[in-house]
Amino acid sequence: MRKGKRKLGRGVAIVGAGMSRYGVRPGVSNREMFVEAFNNMLASVDRGIDPKDIEANYVGCCGAWIWETQAGVGKWCTDWAGLVPKPSTTIDNACASASVAIRQGIIGIASGLYDIVLTGGVEKMTTLPTEETTLVLATGADTTWECYAGFTFPGLYATMATAHMNEYRTTPEDLMAVAIKNHNNGALNPMAQFGQTIRDVMNARIAKAKEKGQSVPSWADEMEFLHDIRYNPVVAWPLRLFDCCPITDGAACVLLVAEEIAKDFTDTPLYVIGTGQASGGALHSRESLTSIPAAQIAARQAYEMAGVKPQDIKIAEVHDCFTIAEVIAIADLGFFKPGKEAATAAAEGKTTRDGVKPINTSGGLKSKGHPVGATGAGMVVEIFHQMRGEAGARQVPMDTNLALTHNVGAHGTTVVVQIYERR
Amino acid sequence: MRKGKRKLGRGVAIVGAGMSRYGVRPGVSNREMFVEAFNNMLASVDRGIDPKDIEANYVGCCGAWIWETQAGVGKWCTDWAGLVPKPSTTIDNACASASVAIRQGIIGIASGLYDIVLTGGVEKMTTLPTEETTLVLATGADTTWECYAGFTFPGLYATMATAHMNEYRTTPEDLMAVAIKNHNNGALNPMAQFGQTIRDVMNARIAKAKEKGQSVPSWADEMEFLHDIRYNPVVAWPLRLFDCCPITDGAACVLLVAEEIAKDFTDTPLYVIGTGQASGGALHSRESLTSIPAAQIAARQAYEMAGVKPQDIKIAEVHDCFTIAEVIAIADLGFFKPGKEAATAAAEGKTTRDGVKPINTSGGLKSKGHPVGATGAGMVVEIFHQMRGEAGARQVPMDTNLALTHNVGAHGTTVVVQIYERR
Repeated sequence: MRKGKRKLGRGVAIVGAGMSRYGVRPGVSNREMFVEAFNNMLASVDRGIDPKDIEANYVGCCGAWIWETQAGVGKWCTDWAGLVPKPSTTIDNACASASVAIRQGIIGIASGLYDIVLTGGVEKMTTLPTEETTLVLATGADTTWECYAGFTFPGLYATMATAHMNEYRTTPEDLMAVAIKNHNNGALNPMAQFGQTIRDVMNARIAKAKEKGQSVPSWADEMEFLHDIRYNPVVAWPLRLFDCCPITDGAACVLLVAEEIAKDFTDTPLYVIGTGQASGGALHSRESLTSIPAAQIAARQAYEMAGVKPQDIKIAEVHDCFTIAEVIAIADLGFFKPGKEAATAAAEGKTTRDGVKPINTSGGLKSKGHPVGATGAGMVVEIFHQMRGEAGARQVPMDTNLALTHNVGAHGTTVVVQIYERR
Repeated sequence: MRKGKRKLGRGVAIVGAGMSRYGVRPGVSNREMFVEAFNNMLASVDRGIDPKDIEANYVGCCGAWIWETQAGVGKWCTDWAGLVPKPSTTIDNACASASVAIRQGIIGIASGLYDIVLTGGVEKMTTLPTEETTLVLATGADTTWECYAGFTFPGLYATMATAHMNEYRTTPEDLMAVAIKNHNNGALNPMAQFGQTIRDVMNARIAKAKEKGQSVPSWADEMEFLHDIRYNPVVAWPLRLFDCCPITDGAACVLLVAEEIAKDFTDTPLYVIGTGQASGGALHSRESLTSIPAAQIAARQAYEMAGVKPQDIKIAEVHDCFTIAEVIAIADLGFFKPGKEAATAAAEGKTTRDGVKPINTSGGLKSKGHPVGATGAGMVVEIFHQMRGEAGARQVPMDTNLALTHNVGAHGTTVVVQIYERR
């Protein structure tokens, strides 16, 4: 029925973004982390914003009911940020929740109903043992077919990884290179869960062995260290510990305003010029295991709306919950050819901060951390700083006038792709 | 900062609505109930709709993670309805989830991004024992202050009821009259959980006593029956069993389209002319216990947008999770004066199907049932049928060109009020 391109009725810009520290945060609740992110967002608005002017709040969160016995937690984040009685909406689209929340904020402004909308996400995940949290997360997959068959997310992504190895001769080293790159970036991000590079971890192990008078392993470099099964055990073959993102507590906030008022808040707003969202079914229902159809569809929608091509994008934050996920993402987004070109992009230095297409300069989910309901908003925080030249030690050298975020829910059951422009 | 009234950029109409049967549905999953509601919605579209033309799906659901170990269940409802890869968003705003989902659909069309949007909600609640489900529901209140103090929802609403009694001399009979009215309506609704009036229940008890040769209770009418503590025990004083809505499995769907294409689907679309949403804090943080501020704010927004007054509304579905909730709702909406006038409206016949302001002709949450994530959409299903003269035995006699829905999340932490017009 619909003819032609999808279009928003009104332009939308980002004028503020902030996150809480990501990590293991014992004794700090979802609403406290949200307020931390909210305050950092407020501080990022160049000419300031009176919170009273915020008209609505969209919050992504997946599992507060389980991890904190608090349902509809976005409402309580809104309350603790002092925004009651403004309308508040809590969204659960698995690990893409915050991106869906941001998209709802964009749509809300485009509709004419709102001019100024707070969006973001939050997740408190470390209250249960890791094994239980892995099971909780698995309920984001298809309970009817996947969970009852014994799948958890490491298993689902391992299935995609083995298919990729079979189809394209992708190697464990290709995947390890993704981890090394993202930890190199995260080590420069003071808000990241891991402040160390993999080389730092390796050197710490060496120092510890020396200190204890044990035989010192003779790793030549990070790659050799990652091959050592004692330090990098298999989680779900071929994915090993350092192929997997951590379990994280954290929150992030993004402030959206109507395009025509953006300059009231800052001289350098970022305009949202493309947004796409698509759904996917269970893994067994897909034709290919080495790409995520919903990501390809969401990307096409976003590129079409923005009127740009993959090669125009200068920098991107993509969903690297596992190393293989980044390999698939950068192909689905059209940055690299599917298969070996995408698989070797990190190893060949194409996606490092000074590469042709810097990917996950924040450290990504892999090193910055992955508080599932907040992750999509955390991506925008990084893009916000990089596009405005405020990313400090990890600032990329090239112009960053066009950027993209790619956020996957579960194993591709929801994907949101968004494109931002600095004019 | 914002000047003037909130306005949508584009008109939105409802052209289809359908629900699953509400009740205890052993062995039927959320996604199966959603498909049941979806198919009934499809059948309600006068000139039909090709599901391929649906561009997005917003689904309210609160507790599938607990009751069905399925997170982000809206995605899987979208999958089973055959709508993948269309974007799907799952919303948890406690018992207002489906109304928030419908509001997002309205905003989505108003934004220009979509022309045709499916909205609705689903909840599978009967998989746990009632006591556990009551605790699960309690996590929709403020965990930090309310749940840890021992509050569950019967207790929170009982607090509001005792305050109402204290302030306005409201009586248990005033509340019982609400239950009697809503069960009278629900008995005429083939999709309702309870197909019996309270008089039917009373007569069944009498028949059973006679059959067993026991002494037959001499209840003069339903009111006397409801006073009998053996059959209507106290849940949380002053609320007794028949003051409380049941625990329900069910789903409901509402199809929204852009105003300019509404007549392609039916000659009698219902136009959404007003929408309001507001948040509220925990009960102890409110100035009054006998009204819900978020409901008053959401109502004001909806009336202002629609340009109508409470007295213009012909018929309404309001949130009667407990009898006291309906009393508070019809005052917050401006239908009746707060206090004794609102409290006695049911007893005086003002809110029956042939009263001056028919309220909850569907049976309400009280008798139709309350599958929490679906309830707001179920309200619209009733309004859809009543406004089009299709409500069968429970069709109200007056013109129904203007209607309202009022859906409360938790004890007023989210409230959505929407106004519909048949032209």
